[in-house]
Amino acid sequence: MSTVQTELQPIEQKFMDYVKEITQLGEAIGLMGWDLRTYAPKKGVEGRSEVIATLSSKIHEMQTSDQMKEYIDTLKGQTDHEIVQKSVEECEKDYNQARKIPTAEFKEYVALQSKAESVWEEAKDKNDFEMFKPYLEKMVEFNKRFAEYWGYEKHIYNALLDNFEPGVTVDVLDEVFPAVRKSLTELLQKIQNSSVEVDASVLTGHFPKEQQQAFSLEILKRMGYDFDAGRLDETVHPFATGLNQGDVRVTTKYDESDFRTAVFGTIHEGGHALYEQNISSELAYTALQGGTSMGIHESQSLFWENFVSRTKAFWQNHYDLFLEHAPESFKEVSFEDFFAAVNEVKPSFIRIEADELTYCLHIMIRYELEKALISGEIEVGDLPELWNDKMEEYLGVRPTSNKVGVLQDVHWAGGMFGYFPSYALGYMYAAQFHNTMKSEIDVEGSIEKGDFTVIKNWLTENIHKYGKSKKPLEILEDVTGEKLNANHLVQHLSDKYSKVYQF
Amino acid sequence: MSTVQTELQPIEQKFMDYVKEITQLGEAIGLMGWDLRTYAPKKGVEGRSEVIATLSSKIHEMQTSDQMKEYIDTLKGQTDHEIVQKSVEECEKDYNQARKIPTAEFKEYVALQSKAESVWEEAKDKNDFEMFKPYLEKMVEFNKRFAEYWGYEKHIYNALLDNFEPGVTVDVLDEVFPAVRKSLTELLQKIQNSSVEVDASVLTGHFPKEQQQAFSLEILKRMGYDFDAGRLDETVHPFATGLNQGDVRVTTKYDESDFRTAVFGTIHEGGHALYEQNISSELAYTALQGGTSMGIHESQSLFWENFVSRTKAFWQNHYDLFLEHAPESFKEVSFEDFFAAVNEVKPSFIRIEADELTYCLHIMIRYELEKALISGEIEVGDLPELWNDKMEEYLGVRPTSNKVGVLQDVHWAGGMFGYFPSYALGYMYAAQFHNTMKSEIDVEGSIEKGDFTVIKNWLTENIHKYGKSKKPLEILEDVTGEKLNANHLVQHLSDKYSKVYQF
Repeated sequence: MSTVQTELQPIEQKFMDYVKEITQLGEAIGLMGWDLRTYAPKKGVEGRSEVIATLSSKIHEMQTSDQMKEYIDTLKGQTDHEIVQKSVEECEKDYNQARKIPTAEFKEYVALQSKAESVWEEAKDKNDFEMFKPYLEKMVEFNKRFAEYWGYEKHIYNALLDNFEPGVTVDVLDEVFPAVRKSLTELLQKIQNSSVEVDASVLTGHFPKEQQQAFSLEILKRMGYDFDAGRLDETVHPFATGLNQGDVRVTTKYDESDFRTAVFGTIHEGGHALYEQNISSELAYTALQGGTSMGIHESQSLFWENFVSRTKAFWQNHYDLFLEHAPESFKEVSFEDFFAAVNEVKPSFIRIEADELTYCLHIMIRYELEKALISGEIEVGDLPELWNDKMEEYLGVRPTSNKVGVLQDVHWAGGMFGYFPSYALGYMYAAQFHNTMKSEIDVEGSIEKGDFTVIKNWLTENIHKYGKSKKPLEILEDVTGEKLNANHLVQHLSDKYSKVYQF
Repeated sequence: MSTVQTELQPIEQKFMDYVKEITQLGEAIGLMGWDLRTYAPKKGVEGRSEVIATLSSKIHEMQTSDQMKEYIDTLKGQTDHEIVQKSVEECEKDYNQARKIPTAEFKEYVALQSKAESVWEEAKDKNDFEMFKPYLEKMVEFNKRFAEYWGYEKHIYNALLDNFEPGVTVDVLDEVFPAVRKSLTELLQKIQNSSVEVDASVLTGHFPKEQQQAFSLEILKRMGYDFDAGRLDETVHPFATGLNQGDVRVTTKYDESDFRTAVFGTIHEGGHALYEQNISSELAYTALQGGTSMGIHESQSLFWENFVSRTKAFWQNHYDLFLEHAPESFKEVSFEDFFAAVNEVKPSFIRIEADELTYCLHIMIRYELEKALISGEIEVGDLPELWNDKMEEYLGVRPTSNKVGVLQDVHWAGGMFGYFPSYALGYMYAAQFHNTMKSEIDVEGSIEKGDFTVIKNWLTENIHKYGKSKKPLEILEDVTGEKLNANHLVQHLSDKYSKVYQF
């Protein structure tokens, strides 16, 4: 925040204290969530989940209370204090989102959500879409109704998008996504026509967990991740979580037959964590304390993963360090083979296993389908077939079952419609940030030297420190001087793969 | 609970839900406390401590609310449901304790408490009693005033005792403690006159942490500690914590030059944990869900530590297992020398390092001094001299500084007057339980076989399952048919040491 802040008036202080309490409850929930996914013994899970539910409703009560309404009405536009003003706006948004949904309906929805997630899990295991279908139908119905309650301009799906990426609309996406899709599918074609054979099997030798961990920790440290304000633990589905600014934790997963899971996963989550660790301390425990959106958050993790750790410059500097930690067998892998292998492109069924190029295509399929579902152009029953058709069209592979097709992601079961685009936006934002960064500092030189300080500082100064005090597209435009522009992503991928696959 | 329970009336259900929410907030605080002492990065500590404070005041608000008063007034004596009735009684006690103290005074006290603890820490480091004195004086004053607010019969100190060991009074302690002291000092005399030389240095060879951990885990498992409902982690000051009945965690500390810290420490904390893991599930999330008192809790940890793991029967069975985990150098230590060494008696300055015999003498010194402080017979300024005099009189050693004398414990800085006696009571209760247990099951045979199932089941059936639904002296009398009786402790120590020291 750049303006000089005046001292708080009593009513402002009361409001900020009230908000602080909400964030504190959130911190307690955050720790319980981290614990459930790392260390909690299984018999404690049921009770702990109920505690999380109780604290979550306390937050909900506070966010939608008459007291909150009074603060909003009193302070909105009536405060000279920028943090207070923007906090009021955030709170008003939450207040409206929650109050517009009738309480009974919301309760029903929350109950359905957890039921739908558990049914989804079973349906996925059993490869049984029909089992999941009625639940998904209900989730779609609820989300359509909520979108109507919330209101929107032009397209109903905008109401949902706004929950995850404020300011981004169907118009924005529909201008950008199809062109990117076309470029990416062309690029994919070139790669598939290339005579270069990339052999990723050189990477899948046995790699003991302890050694993967030591290497991952070293890279996190070099990235500038502050271990006095965080830690690295093991989990099944890796995540980063900002409990408070001095406690931002990273988790990872070790696959002893594929070190990429842990190494690139840790760097990815480390990118999220750097964001949360470097938000301005004056935003701590305010409504502006977190990252500003899913998309900007993802741009940070993807920046480190794809624009730093999958580059030639990175591995030129770090391959010796890698070999020091790697088992003997890796020492026979040449640098060139290694580098090509970590950049292999290979269309596959599963999004979370996708490479840097095909990932966005996975996202576009989901975006197109969920937009059509919400607007009523298609039915839930159409999904499996449409999913597979699009996979075949965009990626050239047709899922052999719904388990590896439409049933693979939890998001829809949890009612998260409007979330998927953030992943693709993250790629595009990251490429745009990278493009600007290159014109201001010596990015490649910094990566070559293995000293990421200037990169980390650039990200902090331009993005991290603002927390939620700037909206995603505001940050994008302030930093890059451009609106959403996918050309930088296409250019980046094209540059990279034309070298790897020599076309 | 033995009676058949009827279904809850709506008002009873509401009350129980209200109490459940209090316990849930307590669970969140418990996890944050565990995390602060195990894994939390240091920069997150300040924020996390404030979250704990916020949730603690929420509990305090709920415990002292008009809503709570209404539940108590409506339900007290008006419910047929035993758990509800006893929960009401617990809540009433908390309500009265808290409401009798003026809010402003309580806030001042809480602030002083944390200040006094940090001053104590510095004063201890610097061996500077004068620095701590004004804070301790204030803590004593507050506690005297609180005792007056709460009210008491006969002796003002009873009001404080009742917070930790309901039902135990100065009359009870003064009947028992002096006789025990006399017996223990006589026993100590015999040990010191014995020609047997116990050489504890045989135990202090280097013992890698991992091996200590493996052995500790194995013993915990054999004790019947349920690892699906708990875990073992490392900390600086070991503790056990029951977050919920399915999540009761043990922590320990590894000293590589003295394995006793971890091994006996883990068994001790494991005894606390077994208590919390085996409370009847119908008491979960009620006001009766925890252990019934500090003293009964300590009796459980001490039972496992002293009546199981320091016995000859235990080591006869486990010495081979121990040697399997121990480094090569331990293999030259004979069983007899080992067993004597883990039962060495040696008067020393520090309570928490004391052996089984002298520990109670340390407690009695604290009891006598704090009772006299609270009743006004002595002043804070008299403490250092009196402390050292009593150490010399009871243990035959005079502390060489206040750091290893009156400044060694945090309790008084935290305002915990009335707590110390629970430690000695725990020893006495444990000996009484052991005495009864021996007449009902084959304790020694079970220990010899290394199968503790019957012991664990006996403790569950007689003690654990009741949670707070029985008061400490009620449990003691129901189980043993006796009131507090220290003879069993004296007998146990006399039997043990007459063998170790051959008198």
